[in-house]
Amino acid sequence: MYVFETKVAWQRGKEYSLTSKDCPPISAATPPEFGGPEGRWSPESLLVAAVQSCSLSTLLYFVERFKIDLVASESVAKGTIEKTEKGERFTGIEVDMTVTVADSATAAKVEALRLQEKVEKYCLVSAALAVPVSVRLLVIASAS
Amino acid sequence: MYVFETKVAWQRGKEYSLTSKDCPPISAATPPEFGGPEGRWSPESLLVAAVQSCSLSTLLYFVERFKIDLVASESVAKGTIEKTEKGERFTGIEVDMTVTVADSATAAKVEALRLQEKVEKYCLVSAALAVPVSVRLLVIASAS
Repeated sequence: MYVFETKVAWQRGKEYSLTSKDCPPISAATPPEFGGPEGRWSPESLLVAAVQSCSLSTLLYFVERFKIDLVASESVAKGTIEKTEKGERFTGIEVDMTVTVADSATAAKVEALRLQEKVEKYCLVSAALAVPVSVRLLVIASAS
Repeated sequence: MYVFETKVAWQRGKEYSLTSKDCPPISAATPPEFGGPEGRWSPESLLVAAVQSCSLSTLLYFVERFKIDLVASESVAKGTIEKTEKGERFTGIEVDMTVTVADSATAAKVEALRLQEKVEKYCLVSAALAVPVSVRLLVIASAS
């Protein structure tokens, strides 16, 4: 069993500071969409970041396991909040990942491993969610 | 409709950097529990922080709406990962909040408002989760 602990202390208005053990604090707040200030992480963006970073951590697990020589990896994630019959709700999170490897042979190996399916299946944060998470994975050979 | 966008760029090993618009970047990584380094936020701690900060933002919404004179608010949140028949999974997140107000009259008013129920009901991030989230709220009068 693992326990992940975080702390929050209110500062002023809709602003607060998040801490977790020896990690640098995160300045967070209610987002501008709901009356908070600009320039701070929000609960909403942190949720999207949690899903996105878990997708990358899951990818990196398989990168290590299958000895893939990774050159770069980036992703953009979008979480959508819509008005539903229960009020405003997250309705989905999309993660668009790009994985750059050294050459086309490695790219073909990555494609064959079906990493996109593995990332969707084994991401611990996505598995904790009720809203659908979709992952797109684009594999690029940097030498091509 | 609102869209919350975040980006991640892989750095090295199991480490990466998270960004969102004009927010300060977050250094994150796979947590030590799963082979990553110490001192960085992880997908798991970010999920717990998202739930916890959303609980506070929801509380602050009602604090403003009901004109409650808040002196302080802190919370500790714990997300538990356990081995289940589907493998390792989040099995619950607990948020322990403390709300300090100026006097016992205000404390009584806050108690009567049943904020704990409202926070559990209206937190957008908790509503997006499949795992159970429980919130405990302790109200303290600072003059008492």
